[in-house]
Amino acid sequence: MSLMIDEIRQQPQVLARALAEPPDALSRLRRRFSKRRPPLIVIVARGTSDNAALFGRYLFEITLGIPTSLAAPSVATLYHKRPIPRDALVIGISQSGESTDINAFMELAEGSDSFTIGITNESASNLASLVDEVLPTQAGKETSVAATKTYTAQLLMLYCLARALGAEIPESDLKRLPDSVELQLRHESAVKQLANRYRDMSHAVVVGRGLNYANGFEFALKLMETSYVVAAGFSCADFAHGPIAIVEEGFPVFVFTPPGPTFKETAKLLARLERSHVDTICIGAPAELQGLPRSRWIEIIGNPPATSRYPLDTLTPIPLIVPAQLFAAHLSECKGLDPDKPRMLSKVTQTL
Amino acid sequence: MSLMIDEIRQQPQVLARALAEPPDALSRLRRRFSKRRPPLIVIVARGTSDNAALFGRYLFEITLGIPTSLAAPSVATLYHKRPIPRDALVIGISQSGESTDINAFMELAEGSDSFTIGITNESASNLASLVDEVLPTQAGKETSVAATKTYTAQLLMLYCLARALGAEIPESDLKRLPDSVELQLRHESAVKQLANRYRDMSHAVVVGRGLNYANGFEFALKLMETSYVVAAGFSCADFAHGPIAIVEEGFPVFVFTPPGPTFKETAKLLARLERSHVDTICIGAPAELQGLPRSRWIEIIGNPPATSRYPLDTLTPIPLIVPAQLFAAHLSECKGLDPDKPRMLSKVTQTL
Repeated sequence: MSLMIDEIRQQPQVLARALAEPPDALSRLRRRFSKRRPPLIVIVARGTSDNAALFGRYLFEITLGIPTSLAAPSVATLYHKRPIPRDALVIGISQSGESTDINAFMELAEGSDSFTIGITNESASNLASLVDEVLPTQAGKETSVAATKTYTAQLLMLYCLARALGAEIPESDLKRLPDSVELQLRHESAVKQLANRYRDMSHAVVVGRGLNYANGFEFALKLMETSYVVAAGFSCADFAHGPIAIVEEGFPVFVFTPPGPTFKETAKLLARLERSHVDTICIGAPAELQGLPRSRWIEIIGNPPATSRYPLDTLTPIPLIVPAQLFAAHLSECKGLDPDKPRMLSKVTQTL
Repeated sequence: MSLMIDEIRQQPQVLARALAEPPDALSRLRRRFSKRRPPLIVIVARGTSDNAALFGRYLFEITLGIPTSLAAPSVATLYHKRPIPRDALVIGISQSGESTDINAFMELAEGSDSFTIGITNESASNLASLVDEVLPTQAGKETSVAATKTYTAQLLMLYCLARALGAEIPESDLKRLPDSVELQLRHESAVKQLANRYRDMSHAVVVGRGLNYANGFEFALKLMETSYVVAAGFSCADFAHGPIAIVEEGFPVFVFTPPGPTFKETAKLLARLERSHVDTICIGAPAELQGLPRSRWIEIIGNPPATSRYPLDTLTPIPLIVPAQLFAAHLSECKGLDPDKPRMLSKVTQTL
């Protein structure tokens, strides 16, 4: 068995532990921001952590109404500008905490009057030493090059941070996430069978939207890293603005179909793809899947957790990415590859 | 001949006309922002216009130091939040001016205390009627579904807007752009020959960085729309964080290689790709191309225009995208397709 599959399976425990032993920093952050929320948030990250950042952007804008921007690190590292708004809360996300460009950006942010937070799996990393507060993801060492448990642990830490900033997500709702992930792991043999049908897949599109937009990119990245599939991630809307021309009969398009505000637009896209006999594989809960035109699907087991104050899809990204992670890991094995050691990659990537 | 090629060839005239008859709004904007620049800029767009927006983000951050964020329209249109920072300058970009989601976002911005600008090719559009000031791209009717002349006209209008906000780019430097584009058009037969070599290409990666990051996405979009190539755009750094695993011997990777701050990191990536015998096709000026490991290349004719106060690549995006546009248009014809009528697409895309 690959390390990747082992690490995917660790996720219920990782999430449960992080919820049982929340970082001390959260209560300090809650106090700091109780009188005045930050007017703006900037997040900087690369790779899988950048997909977590993309999720964070939607989460903060939707639950807190705080405008959130993803930084372009090269503006700082290559062009030597400091495009950081005054008073912004700046968040760096990095599994290893040793990404040169992320750390360079966080140093710049420290040098301005920004308050900085690092979300990292390595509490003794450079990132952790650079920031005002650290939110450790506590996922245990991640050994597979393809990040899985640190992605969902980063998502969880972003929910916790949103709560500290005033989002009204009860802790009891977050505590339903580990069980929901545990349920999705029961899919493994069905997902493996499905992956085997796609063992000759060389290219694919992944569509996600809103809070699950990041999952689209993360699934595409996992397909690229572990299975060398040329996979492009899009929102339904961006996909319709041009890239949709690439699909033809039998072209595989994976679509996240959570309940909530994005459902109707996603259903419209699926109807359009059906007319061209595209091979659409939906990932969602049975209630939504039933009404959708699709070739194949991965059913989420159990109702995905929800939280009363916010849209129905607010807590869906963690359960929905799990079958996608399993699919990528098994596809890699079905293709005779090793998902833990993708060609040309190492665990810590240094870029400027 | 396709409309697309005809419209690509119109670009020197389009750019020259826009520079000869600059929109009145520019002088009003210059006066309005002469005492106080906007502290933040938000840009909203889809498709090719969104690639122009991505360029605008780098341009404003690099030449003005104003933090610039690309909006996530669905937060407004589907989740009904208004994630617009106070005091922000909000810019909507749309060729047709009739994108439902862009216009919905701009209406929200108008309802807040933001100052709004619309960049559009249709002065009588809904977008134009919604905003405080319109910057018409004056490119003449664009008929091909694949946008080309409106993309470079949007880029030019973003330079003009940066100048109005205080960027010290002399008008005389901008006025060198139409001639530089005219020179690139002389490449057409060489580019056509190169495209013919790639007529069986089914997938590709396009790499751009910094001010040419948007060009990477735009070239990838053109390859998808006109030639049904599964093409993914990345920055060198994002590409190294995972997606690089997809490339193998002979895999086509198109790389923009302008002079300036991004050159060294791009050269490092090319050296790495060379070791794996990847088929790298560079687009850049002869001086830079000489020192780079690459399989094939498209030389920019003449020195790309520069401007003394800013990095060497500041004025390169318009000349560098032209051979890429020609490549996509000719590849489409070499494949026996019609670049003006991509399957599943129409000229105005309505999404929410």
